[in-house]
Amino acid sequence: MTSPQTTTEPRDTASAPFVSRHIGPRDADVQHMLETLGYGSVEELVDAAVPAVIRQESPLDLPAPLTEAAALEQLREIADRNVVKTQMIGQGFSDTVTPGVILRKVLENPAWYTAYTPYQPEISQGRLEALLNYQQMVQDLTALPIANASLLDEASAAAEAVLLMHRANRKKADGITLLDADLFPQTRSVALMRAEAVGLDVRVVDLSAGIPEDLRADVEAKGLCGIVLQQPGDSGRIRDHAAAIAAAKEAGALVTIAADILSLALITPPGEQGADIAIGSSQRFGVPLFFGGPHAAFMAVKEGIQRQLPGRLVGVSHDDAGRPAYRLALQTREQHIRRENATSNICTAQALLAIVASMYAVYHGPQGIAAIARHAHAQAHRLATALADGGVTVAHAEYFDTLTLEVPGRAEEIVRAAEENGVNLRLVDADTVRVACDETTVDEDLIAVLDAFGVDVGSLPAAAHEGAVATPGVPEAQRRTSEYLTHPVFNTHRSETQMLRYVTKLANRDLALDRTMIPLGSCTMKLNATTEMESISWPEFCAIHPFAPDHQTEGWRFLIKDLEERLAEITGYAGVSVAPNAGSQGEFAGLWAIRQYHLANDDGARDVCLIPASAHGTNAASAVLAGLKVVVVATADDGTISAEDLDAKLAANEGRVAAIMITYPSTHGVFDADVREVCDKVHAAGGQVYIDGANLNALVGLAQPGRFGGDVSHLNLHKTFCIPHGGGGPGVGPVAVGEHLVPFLPSRENLVTAAPHGSAGVLPISWAYIAMMGGEGLREATAQALVSANYIARRLRDHYPTLYTGNDGLVAHECILDLRELTAKHGVTAEDVCKRLIDYGFHAPTLAFPVAGTLMVEPTESEDLAEIERFIEAMVSIHGEITATTPETVEESVLRRAPHTLASAVTGTWDRAYTQQEALYPLPSLLEDKYLPPVGRIDGAYGDRNLVCSCPPPEAFEQAAAEAPADPVPIPASAAASTSH
Amino acid sequence: MTSPQTTTEPRDTASAPFVSRHIGPRDADVQHMLETLGYGSVEELVDAAVPAVIRQESPLDLPAPLTEAAALEQLREIADRNVVKTQMIGQGFSDTVTPGVILRKVLENPAWYTAYTPYQPEISQGRLEALLNYQQMVQDLTALPIANASLLDEASAAAEAVLLMHRANRKKADGITLLDADLFPQTRSVALMRAEAVGLDVRVVDLSAGIPEDLRADVEAKGLCGIVLQQPGDSGRIRDHAAAIAAAKEAGALVTIAADILSLALITPPGEQGADIAIGSSQRFGVPLFFGGPHAAFMAVKEGIQRQLPGRLVGVSHDDAGRPAYRLALQTREQHIRRENATSNICTAQALLAIVASMYAVYHGPQGIAAIARHAHAQAHRLATALADGGVTVAHAEYFDTLTLEVPGRAEEIVRAAEENGVNLRLVDADTVRVACDETTVDEDLIAVLDAFGVDVGSLPAAAHEGAVATPGVPEAQRRTSEYLTHPVFNTHRSETQMLRYVTKLANRDLALDRTMIPLGSCTMKLNATTEMESISWPEFCAIHPFAPDHQTEGWRFLIKDLEERLAEITGYAGVSVAPNAGSQGEFAGLWAIRQYHLANDDGARDVCLIPASAHGTNAASAVLAGLKVVVVATADDGTISAEDLDAKLAANEGRVAAIMITYPSTHGVFDADVREVCDKVHAAGGQVYIDGANLNALVGLAQPGRFGGDVSHLNLHKTFCIPHGGGGPGVGPVAVGEHLVPFLPSRENLVTAAPHGSAGVLPISWAYIAMMGGEGLREATAQALVSANYIARRLRDHYPTLYTGNDGLVAHECILDLRELTAKHGVTAEDVCKRLIDYGFHAPTLAFPVAGTLMVEPTESEDLAEIERFIEAMVSIHGEITATTPETVEESVLRRAPHTLASAVTGTWDRAYTQQEALYPLPSLLEDKYLPPVGRIDGAYGDRNLVCSCPPPEAFEQAAAEAPADPVPIPASAAASTSH
Repeated sequence: MTSPQTTTEPRDTASAPFVSRHIGPRDADVQHMLETLGYGSVEELVDAAVPAVIRQESPLDLPAPLTEAAALEQLREIADRNVVKTQMIGQGFSDTVTPGVILRKVLENPAWYTAYTPYQPEISQGRLEALLNYQQMVQDLTALPIANASLLDEASAAAEAVLLMHRANRKKADGITLLDADLFPQTRSVALMRAEAVGLDVRVVDLSAGIPEDLRADVEAKGLCGIVLQQPGDSGRIRDHAAAIAAAKEAGALVTIAADILSLALITPPGEQGADIAIGSSQRFGVPLFFGGPHAAFMAVKEGIQRQLPGRLVGVSHDDAGRPAYRLALQTREQHIRRENATSNICTAQALLAIVASMYAVYHGPQGIAAIARHAHAQAHRLATALADGGVTVAHAEYFDTLTLEVPGRAEEIVRAAEENGVNLRLVDADTVRVACDETTVDEDLIAVLDAFGVDVGSLPAAAHEGAVATPGVPEAQRRTSEYLTHPVFNTHRSETQMLRYVTKLANRDLALDRTMIPLGSCTMKLNATTEMESISWPEFCAIHPFAPDHQTEGWRFLIKDLEERLAEITGYAGVSVAPNAGSQGEFAGLWAIRQYHLANDDGARDVCLIPASAHGTNAASAVLAGLKVVVVATADDGTISAEDLDAKLAANEGRVAAIMITYPSTHGVFDADVREVCDKVHAAGGQVYIDGANLNALVGLAQPGRFGGDVSHLNLHKTFCIPHGGGGPGVGPVAVGEHLVPFLPSRENLVTAAPHGSAGVLPISWAYIAMMGGEGLREATAQALVSANYIARRLRDHYPTLYTGNDGLVAHECILDLRELTAKHGVTAEDVCKRLIDYGFHAPTLAFPVAGTLMVEPTESEDLAEIERFIEAMVSIHGEITATTPETVEESVLRRAPHTLASAVTGTWDRAYTQQEALYPLPSLLEDKYLPPVGRIDGAYGDRNLVCSCPPPEAFEQAAAEAPADPVPIPASAAASTSH
Repeated sequence: MTSPQTTTEPRDTASAPFVSRHIGPRDADVQHMLETLGYGSVEELVDAAVPAVIRQESPLDLPAPLTEAAALEQLREIADRNVVKTQMIGQGFSDTVTPGVILRKVLENPAWYTAYTPYQPEISQGRLEALLNYQQMVQDLTALPIANASLLDEASAAAEAVLLMHRANRKKADGITLLDADLFPQTRSVALMRAEAVGLDVRVVDLSAGIPEDLRADVEAKGLCGIVLQQPGDSGRIRDHAAAIAAAKEAGALVTIAADILSLALITPPGEQGADIAIGSSQRFGVPLFFGGPHAAFMAVKEGIQRQLPGRLVGVSHDDAGRPAYRLALQTREQHIRRENATSNICTAQALLAIVASMYAVYHGPQGIAAIARHAHAQAHRLATALADGGVTVAHAEYFDTLTLEVPGRAEEIVRAAEENGVNLRLVDADTVRVACDETTVDEDLIAVLDAFGVDVGSLPAAAHEGAVATPGVPEAQRRTSEYLTHPVFNTHRSETQMLRYVTKLANRDLALDRTMIPLGSCTMKLNATTEMESISWPEFCAIHPFAPDHQTEGWRFLIKDLEERLAEITGYAGVSVAPNAGSQGEFAGLWAIRQYHLANDDGARDVCLIPASAHGTNAASAVLAGLKVVVVATADDGTISAEDLDAKLAANEGRVAAIMITYPSTHGVFDADVREVCDKVHAAGGQVYIDGANLNALVGLAQPGRFGGDVSHLNLHKTFCIPHGGGGPGVGPVAVGEHLVPFLPSRENLVTAAPHGSAGVLPISWAYIAMMGGEGLREATAQALVSANYIARRLRDHYPTLYTGNDGLVAHECILDLRELTAKHGVTAEDVCKRLIDYGFHAPTLAFPVAGTLMVEPTESEDLAEIERFIEAMVSIHGEITATTPETVEESVLRRAPHTLASAVTGTWDRAYTQQEALYPLPSLLEDKYLPPVGRIDGAYGDRNLVCSCPPPEAFEQAAAEAPADPVPIPASAAASTSH
């Protein structure tokens, strides 16, 4: 496969080609694997594994691979085609300073960005604490008691709020939902689209005087389910929402307020205004503009509806020694449990960006946040004063940081003049300009703005003294009086040294790709190369506003288009949009395109989506959210789609089949040779074929879903194309479609996300990956992923049989290890194995997905042979431990009591059935490098019963330390699945 | 001190002022400290501590402090005044690619750059391994058996080689040393200056045909001590050195070869040519050009002279469980042991840059390094061919990567044309141009060069095929045939994932400032802020060649001049040069200036340097190296300089006193009120006063050495001005002088380092620090350093008395804790306390300096109160452990057997006199965050007796793991001092 030239020696370029840095195994390693598997070459194995019927005919037509230096140079050239201006456009995106220590030690630190979603809480206490801080921060600022650990963006958070109000307000579930006209346009647009997709009656109206007269009859007839307000409004105005909220409550409706997070330091928070739900973006807490994303949105709710809350929720529970410990709470809300009843894609989040925002609050603390808010406000006030003095009409006197200026006929000219002065303003219409101040606004910016308005720049008032009214633009009745960020975590890390140590301490608690392989089936945890990551924090990429004028964003738009074209070539589709900012959004966008296509063909009755039983839960959730009815197709014994049941379901739903959603290779990790037939049958029935790209890492360069039967796919750039998982986001889920569906792709007129290009900020990562690998390199990576997965399956088959295999007994890029017989015989569960792997220094494989009682292992092409052997050695050793256990002894076994902390081994009395050495050093190689989890096994059920989603007081830990019991607290066995897209 | 506005709230700027990020304690903390100390305000304490007689009269006259964002903006503007070109100048500085994973995870990672010199080996195994890899790499490439862990630069390494040959070749110590004329000009210049300073007879001659006829008589008369050759030469030519080497050996001389490290992959290495010593720069192994430095130089020697080797040497020993463990070997060579006999400043190194270079070799491996060498050579060969074809005279046919081109009368025009084409060439003289190729040279660069020479660019030959002679420019007799980099460490980290994990694994073994305070007295381990670090890797700073034309380096020269002026204002001197790239170099430059001054005044008989007994060993070494005779002045009981003895020594050396070197505040951490008198006496005796700036952190903003009696000082930018220690380098040691000495400062004509501006690359760090602190902020920092040191001294005085105090019982910025009484009574040594502190998660204070049996503690202003309290708590707890010990029980005590590894606690049988919990968790707070050293106490003496300075084979560790004894290996008590400048 990897020829000697490409893996061991550079040729005409001086440094090794990137492909040999990305792919782990060396030539000799590959040879060894092939010998074990009984194949003479990689090609032979690939030919055996991948059905000929789907193989692509010609190699990928992509530019020749670049060296890392050349890729950076090209990215530099692309970046230089963007123009960095002072961004005063606002509209939900404000400039901010990412403190250096957070930029380098979080956003640019593999220990944070390569981490997986914290489904294995014992190795995730660091990022769970950071996310809990995020929840606490949102709870404090919104004055609502429960907040989640982030959503994708403010607009989709608004959509989620509308859906949540419909779930939570059962009596009014068929009622109307009203969106205030002063929401950001993108918030209105996305919320409307998503609500209409599931058939809700949602209307945009002016709620400034309560519910408008002309709507009262309708509201009375249909009922009012909920209202969505914004504060400050799109106009920048701070309105007294009391009337609207009272009217809504009166009508039995729920109230959502979209709030600017920084403004909450100065303005009465949603919870104190009577809102049931608050949403917003936390971008301006230290997260770069990123041309629109990724940014973390927040959602907080009142007591009573927390179990309906979308998104991940970190909760406090305890471990087996009674120590407080964090883990994701209420995971049973996850869509893979709910399947066809799912109404929310819970697993979509922006963990890394939420962590950055929470660290910003930790670093600045309440005084710092207040000072930053006052600064933005003061600058707006000084500007308003000078503009008004200069004869410009300031539309309203109540504002936080954004002013609407009435300049009849002059708006374009003013915006152009400001741009020439280095400042971007918002052109609302020919007569209206909006100006938003922020943390970074300095007097020079204000002077540039004044000059653009033709106002004497000398008229800028002096900065206010200490003691002057701090917030003149905030009406007294709307001024915040309550405290926030009072927890010690927000009040102890003021010096950079303290902050550095806090971030380091949390990172050291966790396992990420910088320390171990993360062999998660379906999650493709491959290398996130530094060169790929490097350009995302260049100002020319990250300091661009999503609504900056096109002539300033040529570089961005080139990169996006170029990436979309390369992805189209790779997948064999006609068109791609990278706008969806998560796999779930890609699915929604793809199904929505299918739905629009049928509607456009006057085929609107097609509302059924067939989904195989083995599918990932996200599929069903997306179908429901796209307004489709889920019909499950059974799985045959060999893991393939049951042809009989497919025929039956097609027949039963004649004329109604909108689409089938399949994953290829299947979620069982197998290349199903019948896939073309399945596609043909669905096409014959008038349906569209949606091929989930979750497993695209097994296909790139070998087969193109757009050519072997798919009409739509979504990809996961955070799997196959190297965007890091970030501890649970950012993700990017481009949607790829055939020619006939291209008109229905997301676009500026047809937003699926708050920003036109979704999480544009991380796209240079995938661009660089593809550019440095080239077509042949990508194919080599895929082939190596197949070889490595098959090697693991083969080496472990005598200990853990592989559940499903395809042609020649081969798997695709992952393998399902079946533990059910071992569990039945010895009492040891697959979950026990996951926890015990921590003692061996590994992140667990995927647990109980797609089949309960199994582990799904995916090594990816990036893992080298030594690491693969280390994993095999651990699994074999664990097998020995399992067979030495019986159902009678399992409760006291080293497996059930795993993972083992240092404290458990050396404090108190050791009276276990095994030695401390067996607990902590089951293999001698661990003496070389040993990871110690900060907590023992966590009792998730306890935490769900006693839901606490705020930061515990420090005393809780001290007490636990003092009272640490010699005997463990029993933890009920559970077998929650632990995977996500 | 820190007013409420500056510590808790930003005012007109949005983010907190930098001073409140740099200084650890908050207002309330300071108040608490002052109350404990019995002072009403910081000013009161400062007035009490610092003698009025030295206080400065007016505040520092520095620009107002910048916010972090503004500082970055100014640095960006300065950087933009430099011009980045393709650098083909060569002359010891070649462009290179720093692999992204090494750039981000080593060079830009606080875990590596904030670490201290590995004097405490148990918490330094990671960086010791990296430095051992460096030694192995140098040994392999030079084919000499012992290499050190780096020197400051190639030119000073040549000087050290000359001195080493004189030390090692005792029979010929009075003989002549010959430098070949084809050395780099800066190598010749620095070596000559340093050799002449100590009175050696060193001459520059053409050694291409052996020892020149006209020298033979002289050589016969005086003897030949050594010769220094270079390969390839400054001319780029590869010469057969056989004749010169044979002649030298014949004459009983030692042979040094300065070698290009990359060329050693292709050319017969020095060891195989018969050299005794090899030196060179490892810059081109991944270290940016940095406008000349910091770069690590190497030195390797043959068996038999290793104990004379200058610089640090990492050796392999074992810990108390018999596991292989690394530590600095032969520390008795250190100048603080030798004092007035010192002939080398052993502790000057470039650890961080050596680590980068070693990681580059680890990542590329032997094949990669060979390929890079072949690439540079092939590009040079293609260029030579095309130029020759185009009628340009190529001066010699034997070359590695550098060509000398004879272009009578056209040189300037060609260099200018090349510059216009984006390439810098080396202008040798009006008729000669030199061109150097490197790792980064691409065909476009060659074409740009050809075009500048007026040669048809189409004549560039195609890149050679595989199989063609790989190294046509290297004469067959000089081609390397031996293997190198064969150790597994250079052959297992080929993928970026592997490399990332290796770097992370090593970093996790160590304690640096990102995890704990490093309370090292005299070393000032303060915050190295991210914003300070950020700009050093901008290409506009780091990709500039030190010999680029002035019009391309305006930004650099502005920054350097501006920094020098600010340092002059801070110190109260008339002139400053930042060229010295270590404190020791600054001392040398300062003493050299004094010596030149006396010579210029016809006062050449002044050759005595008075040095107080309490001085740091470096002082004496520097004096010797500057050609001065050291006379020690006794210390009085109170730690001050004995006035009587000073008078006596001045009298005894009448007319011969060149200078006195004092440290202020003294190395005892006390403000000596008599300092002005001491200065006056020496001045009256005709001597100059050298005030060592090691303790400047206690003076900045309060007192100026240039105003209270000093004629010269050197500063340590890596102490007071925030350049990180990097695990033992880079350092910068500017020299500051009074008006009368300004003419003798280092300059381009008067080089003290290989590059005109020394370690320019790290100067933006100090510039940013000063710019963001402002004069008042700097003063606040100093005052806080005094408050915090006094707080520790006071809080610990009942447990560990402070040895010396000044006015009002106060110390300066550090305090010496006297353990001698405890040692006498309980048998526990200060070293035991250092090792036990590791179990508490701390880096030890300075051990046994300046007084044996003591610990010197310096918290710096950056440590917050909580961390200070954590340290106090640990020290008090250890005191309890000490008093529970007796001389009879000490051998088996938790103190003597510290530090404790995880393996020691949980493998084998636990049969110690204390519990595992007492060993690992002496305080409950450690449950929250516990550092575990990878090895137990290391037997340094064993390693020195059995000197091994190469990477041990992996089997050594496996064997140790298998044989790990239940009983510890006894380790002899030792009390080696552990500090350095």
